[in-house]
Amino acid sequence: MGRYCPITPRRPPRIGRRLDARGATVSQTIRITVDGEPREVTEGTTGFDLFDGRREIVAQRVDGELRDLSRTVGDGEAIESVEITSQDGLNILRHSATHVLAQAVQEVRPDARLGIGPFITDGFYYDFGVDEPFTPEDLKEIKKRMQRIVKQGQRFVRRSVSEDEARREEATQPFKLELIGLKGHAGDDEESVEVGGSGLTMYDNVDPKTGDTVWSDLCRGPHLPSTRLIGNGFDLLRTAAAYWRGDEHNPQLQRIYGTAWPTKDELKAYQHRLAEAAKRDHRRLGVELDLFSFPDEIGSGLPVFHPKGGIIRREMENYSRRRHEEAGYDFVYTPHITKAHLYEVSGHLEWYKDGMFPPLHVDEELDAEGNVKRQGQDYYLKPMNCPMHNLIYASRARSYRDLPLRLFEFGTVYRYEKSGVIHGLTRARGFTQDDAHIYTTREQMKDELTSVLNFVLDLLKDYGLDDFYLELSTKDPKKYVGTDEVWEEATNTLREVAEASGLELVPDPEGAAFYGPKISVQARDAIGRTWQMSTLQLDFNLPERFGLEYTAADGTQQRPVMIHRALFGSIERFFGVLLEHYAGAFPLWLAPEQVVGIPVADEYAPYLEDVAARMRAVGLRASVDASDDRMPKKIRTHSKQKVPVMLIAGEEDRSAGAVSFRFRDGSQCNGVPVDDAVAWLRALADARVQVSSVSDAVGAPGVEAPARAVAAARAAEVSHPAE
Amino acid sequence: MGRYCPITPRRPPRIGRRLDARGATVSQTIRITVDGEPREVTEGTTGFDLFDGRREIVAQRVDGELRDLSRTVGDGEAIESVEITSQDGLNILRHSATHVLAQAVQEVRPDARLGIGPFITDGFYYDFGVDEPFTPEDLKEIKKRMQRIVKQGQRFVRRSVSEDEARREEATQPFKLELIGLKGHAGDDEESVEVGGSGLTMYDNVDPKTGDTVWSDLCRGPHLPSTRLIGNGFDLLRTAAAYWRGDEHNPQLQRIYGTAWPTKDELKAYQHRLAEAAKRDHRRLGVELDLFSFPDEIGSGLPVFHPKGGIIRREMENYSRRRHEEAGYDFVYTPHITKAHLYEVSGHLEWYKDGMFPPLHVDEELDAEGNVKRQGQDYYLKPMNCPMHNLIYASRARSYRDLPLRLFEFGTVYRYEKSGVIHGLTRARGFTQDDAHIYTTREQMKDELTSVLNFVLDLLKDYGLDDFYLELSTKDPKKYVGTDEVWEEATNTLREVAEASGLELVPDPEGAAFYGPKISVQARDAIGRTWQMSTLQLDFNLPERFGLEYTAADGTQQRPVMIHRALFGSIERFFGVLLEHYAGAFPLWLAPEQVVGIPVADEYAPYLEDVAARMRAVGLRASVDASDDRMPKKIRTHSKQKVPVMLIAGEEDRSAGAVSFRFRDGSQCNGVPVDDAVAWLRALADARVQVSSVSDAVGAPGVEAPARAVAAARAAEVSHPAE
Repeated sequence: MGRYCPITPRRPPRIGRRLDARGATVSQTIRITVDGEPREVTEGTTGFDLFDGRREIVAQRVDGELRDLSRTVGDGEAIESVEITSQDGLNILRHSATHVLAQAVQEVRPDARLGIGPFITDGFYYDFGVDEPFTPEDLKEIKKRMQRIVKQGQRFVRRSVSEDEARREEATQPFKLELIGLKGHAGDDEESVEVGGSGLTMYDNVDPKTGDTVWSDLCRGPHLPSTRLIGNGFDLLRTAAAYWRGDEHNPQLQRIYGTAWPTKDELKAYQHRLAEAAKRDHRRLGVELDLFSFPDEIGSGLPVFHPKGGIIRREMENYSRRRHEEAGYDFVYTPHITKAHLYEVSGHLEWYKDGMFPPLHVDEELDAEGNVKRQGQDYYLKPMNCPMHNLIYASRARSYRDLPLRLFEFGTVYRYEKSGVIHGLTRARGFTQDDAHIYTTREQMKDELTSVLNFVLDLLKDYGLDDFYLELSTKDPKKYVGTDEVWEEATNTLREVAEASGLELVPDPEGAAFYGPKISVQARDAIGRTWQMSTLQLDFNLPERFGLEYTAADGTQQRPVMIHRALFGSIERFFGVLLEHYAGAFPLWLAPEQVVGIPVADEYAPYLEDVAARMRAVGLRASVDASDDRMPKKIRTHSKQKVPVMLIAGEEDRSAGAVSFRFRDGSQCNGVPVDDAVAWLRALADARVQVSSVSDAVGAPGVEAPARAVAAARAAEVSHPAE
Repeated sequence: MGRYCPITPRRPPRIGRRLDARGATVSQTIRITVDGEPREVTEGTTGFDLFDGRREIVAQRVDGELRDLSRTVGDGEAIESVEITSQDGLNILRHSATHVLAQAVQEVRPDARLGIGPFITDGFYYDFGVDEPFTPEDLKEIKKRMQRIVKQGQRFVRRSVSEDEARREEATQPFKLELIGLKGHAGDDEESVEVGGSGLTMYDNVDPKTGDTVWSDLCRGPHLPSTRLIGNGFDLLRTAAAYWRGDEHNPQLQRIYGTAWPTKDELKAYQHRLAEAAKRDHRRLGVELDLFSFPDEIGSGLPVFHPKGGIIRREMENYSRRRHEEAGYDFVYTPHITKAHLYEVSGHLEWYKDGMFPPLHVDEELDAEGNVKRQGQDYYLKPMNCPMHNLIYASRARSYRDLPLRLFEFGTVYRYEKSGVIHGLTRARGFTQDDAHIYTTREQMKDELTSVLNFVLDLLKDYGLDDFYLELSTKDPKKYVGTDEVWEEATNTLREVAEASGLELVPDPEGAAFYGPKISVQARDAIGRTWQMSTLQLDFNLPERFGLEYTAADGTQQRPVMIHRALFGSIERFFGVLLEHYAGAFPLWLAPEQVVGIPVADEYAPYLEDVAARMRAVGLRASVDASDDRMPKKIRTHSKQKVPVMLIAGEEDRSAGAVSFRFRDGSQCNGVPVDDAVAWLRALADARVQVSSVSDAVGAPGVEAPARAVAAARAAEVSHPAE
């Protein structure tokens, strides 16, 4: 124990101990629970004492509140350990890394003014007011200095300060002074990481050898006990410009993004995931595969789909449309613009105006002198379809016999995203929701939710996602409409429905919108990233605002419950997610080019043309590459375009009336009779399965493969036996 | 000949005759052609002389220009007779009727100021500046006075006037004075009917007995020889408010609409058509059948489609989509808004701005003081899809191998129609075009146009329209881009393609847009009205503006020709046309409710439910009316909803495993085995035929009817043998 151990730092002398009758100190006993177990400890015990020697524990959660291990526990408190590998632990690790980053930056750029430095998903950032942006060389130097600070094992020491003291200490830091003015600000946003909560605190970085404070930052904490725990699992990623407090009227700062993980291996795994994600970036694949673009002439966040992307999208929509028809949805169509009044009734103009495009002013009439003779109307692009569906509901009297009424629309909506957050297809300004609004009685609600959830999961699986969990967003007690009973009933119903699905159910307490609780379906993609897909949102508010009613069996007028339900969410976003999930290698039914014929030599092109024509006759997208390229070049070209099936034919195939299949992984099966080939491919497309190899194609459930293909797959198994 | 004959009015004394050497007048001989036949006539011959005694001829066309019969013909002129039953003749009849109307109005309201009074399709109107709108009683009185004027047989006498004379004569008529100021205005619009052409003319209505001018109007003419020819085939229809010269900044006038036909029988036939059209008015049927509505909350011209209308529209779109897929169209998707710049490039903001909604101003950034820090952008709702499709074309290099490239989109566009002209679905502010832009080489143009025209006609037939003619709009020599050779080539190509179709081809000289000639398909509906449906528009201009190119086989860069092609035109409008064409009684495949089961008594409802479920299993829209109503009431209800097939079942049917069909006309066929019924209905829906009766259904081409149905149809024939 010769060297300084960050887990057991020098403990400050205990003060204020009680003296017994003879003047000796009395160790007052207090009762607490630790990770659920009742314990009695002496007053003045800290988290360090409780978790002594357990290096993986980096903080304590006291009655739900995260605190430094150095803080003492009180009588009756429930203490939980926070491991560095838990989400809270990772957040603390990353938050502490931001302090090390800022300290290092001020070593390199002593005049850097500090903005905020929060943890974010998978990492952290810190914003700096500097005269010159950071260069890649700066980042290298900063990282080196961070490594030195980590090695030094500086202790994070928390200190309460008054507002005056804080102002004195931060006198040269204009942004920190501004934050001090915001103290008490209690939101969940990034700024409150610095100054939220009840009082102001500073965190001092203390040199363990000298005991000197070498650097300080205004911060709410908590932090790791020591910088040493940051280890070598961190890295700096990139810089970006950012407005102070995210407001474009404020000065521009320079942001440094970093990431931090408990171990170097985890860092490496993360960097691998990043690289994988970059390779699968749908914006890049969209260009490479000629699927869509964002023309400058049209404006940001407004995609156009090119022919190949149009095929994928059309197939996505066709299948969804068919399934919705079968499932008893009524198809409606509504316009993209409406008078402002509709969004006054719905409340969007009150609650959601920032997310809407500015209005168009229409139908104003001027007289000859240019004076307004008739007031015009503000029209808005629709950000949501629900108000218009409500008008359709309200267009005639409804009876309980009409319910559930399921109005479905591929409705294109427009939302005014700031240009900084627009991101390809996954965050666009215009997108098409596969939007349904279901009106039910209270009695039908549970059955309807159950069948909708099953419908949604079933359909998502057909598109190739099959790793789900559910999130249940429940009431925010500060912000809701409707009675507690109705909320409880609705929340219980959602919970029962979610639990009955057998999927993992993650609570999202206080995460509901003010008008009702919600289940969201989270899907993991091929590289383990989670995407929020479908949502089932109960709504007690809009039926009220629109005065929606139905006549119940007993003749009384009742208010229906409304379920907002989007399955893809947005077709564009789902397109982007699938593109990344498949890394562009779509399953047969979605692939824009399903089959390309490749003649061994030019003379076999007409034969393959006949084969392709037979494929097209059963609705397959088949063509022949009759270009001047040689065969290997053709195979490379279409491999790059991720065509699922190449059909090769030479003399042997032609004379046998057969073709040879080549799949994406290079596996082949030769000599499949054309009749069998046509039927097999049609069946594989209809089965909506991925076919990257002979084995995929032969193993597709419910699809009978031709004998030749089965033989080829067996041969492949023999040469690569299953592990 | 005792009474005044309007065909041979008193001829004005000839003036300026040539004298021979002895001072006698010489009848100078001139050569003309009359309806294509060469003739020699003496100078001073009028149209009356040429067509003496042919009462049906009401004007002459001299070298293409319509003139009064009273005018003399000149040497070398080609004269054609204009019969009252021809379109020109009808126009003249109606134009003369407007004069009679105005004269009658000024008898009733001496202070009425005269606006314009043109002929229109099937009728005419005249606008009047009056202090009080006309009442129905006014119209009756006016019509009575018109009848008197017609009986009087007033002659229409043309008189050239100088501008000063015209101003003097019209001194009390402010609108006429304004029109005089517009003289020389050479458009084809309604105002130029009054003052277009080279000089100003007045038409005097002359009392045939006294020779006195009883009324005059500034007018370009020509007119009938006499009011008597108007006969009793006219009527006044309604009044409406209208802005002077169609501009909402101008004073409001009162418009009286009328109609006029050569005979009373034709008037009656027209009134019958009007009544039929009113019964079929798609706005009325839309409400009665719960298909769509125009909610006030959204705004005028912006329809929402209810579930039943949504089915029809979806079926219309599904079939169109499938056919377009098969025909090699590429599906693209483009947004509904774009930066203004795109429409500057395309020229729409220069040529078409009045038809566009006002802009939204987006992305402007203000600093803390509210000053503009970054200029924003004007975004427009798209009025047309073509510029966006051009961006897709231009998004990559194209080769001759890629052509023809056919980009298709169901593209919803927004056009700013003045509220006065909005009319249900047929003239809306937002509508969805089934829009394609085809890029071809000059060499491919003819084949492509031929196949597109065949595709279009074929598809329109499937929707139930089969009575077509074509219109060929050719160059307006005052307004066109591109070389004469290209226009000639393109026009000839269009003409050849149109002629090859075997359809009637009506010329529309000078009717082309400035960027290229066009074929439009005109369809006659069930009551003989003509609707402009599909258009095939060649375009030499946009490829130029967007710099579109392709690499030709010889390696040179060439400009493609662009074909704009909409088949429905607008889905909404086509929906409206079909709704009127079918008077709501859609053919089976489009009917929102295809089959309704009607149990003879409640106990047979479960049996019919099973039958309906079997129908649904093959994709038919089938349900059972299990309400408390009695059977005859149910039949009435579903007849009113125009359900094509009712399936009735009682004891006999149930025990035989059969159902009884009832068609819209009340014809039935009983005891059809359920298996046969399911297969038959599926086949009838797939055949896309109208099935209003047993005979329709049995006679459907390519569909095998069950034996029972054939027998029923035969029995019906026997009881109502074919005439």
